[in-house]
Amino acid sequence: MAGGLTVVQPDLKLAASLFDELSRATRRGLGIVRDSYGAGEQAAHDIMRAAAQALGLDISIDPIGNLMMTLRGRDRDARRLMIGSHLDSVPQGGNFDGAAGVVAGLSALSALKKAGLEPGYDLTVMGIRAEETAWFDVPYIGSAGAFGLLDPSCLSVKRSDDGRTLESALSERGFDPEAIRSRRRLLDPATIRAFLEVHIEQGPTLVAQGLPAAVVTGIRGCRRFRHARCIGQYAHSGAVNRPYRHDAVAATVALLHHLEAFWVEQEKAGVDLVFTAGELYTDPALHGPSKIAGETRFVIDLRSVSKATMDAVAAEARRAAARLGEAYRVSFDLGVTSDSPCASMDARLRQRLMSLLDQPFEMPSGAGHDAAVFAQVGVPTAMIFMRNEHGSHNSDEALALEDFEVATRTLLRLLVDFPL
Amino acid sequence: MAGGLTVVQPDLKLAASLFDELSRATRRGLGIVRDSYGAGEQAAHDIMRAAAQALGLDISIDPIGNLMMTLRGRDRDARRLMIGSHLDSVPQGGNFDGAAGVVAGLSALSALKKAGLEPGYDLTVMGIRAEETAWFDVPYIGSAGAFGLLDPSCLSVKRSDDGRTLESALSERGFDPEAIRSRRRLLDPATIRAFLEVHIEQGPTLVAQGLPAAVVTGIRGCRRFRHARCIGQYAHSGAVNRPYRHDAVAATVALLHHLEAFWVEQEKAGVDLVFTAGELYTDPALHGPSKIAGETRFVIDLRSVSKATMDAVAAEARRAAARLGEAYRVSFDLGVTSDSPCASMDARLRQRLMSLLDQPFEMPSGAGHDAAVFAQVGVPTAMIFMRNEHGSHNSDEALALEDFEVATRTLLRLLVDFPL
Repeated sequence: MAGGLTVVQPDLKLAASLFDELSRATRRGLGIVRDSYGAGEQAAHDIMRAAAQALGLDISIDPIGNLMMTLRGRDRDARRLMIGSHLDSVPQGGNFDGAAGVVAGLSALSALKKAGLEPGYDLTVMGIRAEETAWFDVPYIGSAGAFGLLDPSCLSVKRSDDGRTLESALSERGFDPEAIRSRRRLLDPATIRAFLEVHIEQGPTLVAQGLPAAVVTGIRGCRRFRHARCIGQYAHSGAVNRPYRHDAVAATVALLHHLEAFWVEQEKAGVDLVFTAGELYTDPALHGPSKIAGETRFVIDLRSVSKATMDAVAAEARRAAARLGEAYRVSFDLGVTSDSPCASMDARLRQRLMSLLDQPFEMPSGAGHDAAVFAQVGVPTAMIFMRNEHGSHNSDEALALEDFEVATRTLLRLLVDFPL
Repeated sequence: MAGGLTVVQPDLKLAASLFDELSRATRRGLGIVRDSYGAGEQAAHDIMRAAAQALGLDISIDPIGNLMMTLRGRDRDARRLMIGSHLDSVPQGGNFDGAAGVVAGLSALSALKKAGLEPGYDLTVMGIRAEETAWFDVPYIGSAGAFGLLDPSCLSVKRSDDGRTLESALSERGFDPEAIRSRRRLLDPATIRAFLEVHIEQGPTLVAQGLPAAVVTGIRGCRRFRHARCIGQYAHSGAVNRPYRHDAVAATVALLHHLEAFWVEQEKAGVDLVFTAGELYTDPALHGPSKIAGETRFVIDLRSVSKATMDAVAAEARRAAARLGEAYRVSFDLGVTSDSPCASMDARLRQRLMSLLDQPFEMPSGAGHDAAVFAQVGVPTAMIFMRNEHGSHNSDEALALEDFEVATRTLLRLLVDFPL
């Protein structure tokens, strides 16, 4: 593309109307519910698809439900450039985590269309399926599945709330579990020039820095004990002295407190790490105010830009669980971990994006993103973060349209300028 | 009474059949459910009442549902002797906590009847209502209510599972909330010669000691933060570094761990204390494996034979909650406490019971009992503990009929021998 480029502006009217539509269609009470392969995610796909049709983009849906919306380029055989993010949300999440990246892509393509600019190669916006592990505890189902990277055993993973398997969820929506079972590659990395993901920042950094957007340096991986348990013995709270107790709460508290102390030490040593137990509960059918708890269930979620760090902390968790289980006369079963790899962003793309920002700023991503999968298969990948109040994965996500504009304009400039 | 006393033996056939009937009528899945003022407790009252009728005892029910089963004595105007315990259970509790004391009373009265022994004064077995606070968080509803000791505001306390008020639960069973509202005394302490409660031990001491029964020295009081909460802020688990977190789980873990350490110190100083957080949970509607938890709810249950100790630990809990709330950028709301007082058992009765045991052994009661209320209003009160495997407040309570026999025979000897 060439000429008069600075006058091309993202289609903010389209963006605002898509955000409204998404909120209306998928809000349940206070929060947004776009359940992976459920009705909420599907509603978001339907909205994006209708918008793409109205823009005259080519539309296709791959066998596992990813939505491809393409603005044809002059050379249809040239490697295409992809822009994308996911359209699902956590339970009671916000309107922007994921969806804003798809909206950014469509706003950019709409602007190119309206300006009458024809790209040199295809530009595809991808509405990716099932990125959030809150529903099916399998990382990056949509993007990893598109590259044939999923372990077929994931088809029997059950949805956390209703127990349906991923296989039946796929089938019920008319998609093809066979594509996963046969590890079929639906997308060839060699045909992709680059992958760009625009996403809200999910932490407080940009708000604290007073900046609208940032370029991402790399993505933290995640090591998660999703189904950790502690088994003790229920007993009367008043009648059993400490040496006779098998108190699952006391033991779990000791384990989590130990791991927090370990984390603080790692931080002091300059190691990148976050540690979270976001779910922790005694059994509502069996616990009681006058009973020692005989069981807890909890999640341990470790994240770092370094695999070695995650290995070290996971090993410490297992050692401490063994030691404290003995001390408290209970048994811990931390279960298997689910893993998402760390990923580095493409140096050339990072540099180019930094040069396009009025207030250049770089930072790591604490959360995982589909961009990590594209990076993993060798596609040059970059991310732009947008400032977002109140964090994400909650109903208070707040993305100002002005910050969305800064990020999407940066994306658009890269599209217009990207060297073939 | 007089003569040939040692040949009087408790009616074990009746006891065995009553335990069977109770188990059949009130088992729900693995455990026993005799909900206070609910269908489960009522079933137990119906079973005891039918047995008392078959024995030819006088039966009356007081305005709040306590069941009085009386073997008439020669002097109807003399102060009566009472034997009793409660007929409710915790959710998913065992068959013996409470009910065994009523069964013991009936087995003793049946033996006296069969032996043709007429007591000098009335002997009343009392099936007490609603001792367990798991349903309505009000201590000793049945026994405290009988003495007009309940604060009328307790009528608006809601049942923990279905939210019905105590007032409507009473009314639905045909009882009279007005008796509580007007603090009416349904039972006059001056007319009661003594109160005796037989109960399973709810801890492991008698099992560890290899003894069938014990005489109780005193009863631990309870100070309970039933509705403690920690309010933080939900956020993405990977994207928010430690200094920006408002992590309700981390803060709650720190508080509970601190209080455990405080407990260990108290123990070392020889202080009688137990500390339990038997319920602890994040919000299943809002938590998630990739979210920092914005809220926890938990219970802190403190017990000691010393009020001063409970005061000191409760004060430490409030101090620590304030300090840690600030450190973790969350706010704790421990709420009000519910209290049950400590109680001493009658020295003369204790001595007499000790002299009747083949293997005399005394110990404190860690759990609260209706006996504490009788002691509080000045009735000479004593308790006999029976060995019980696996503790109580769970479905595995196990009382051997031989141990029940030792305790009930001791009770029976006291009845036969009790000096007017």
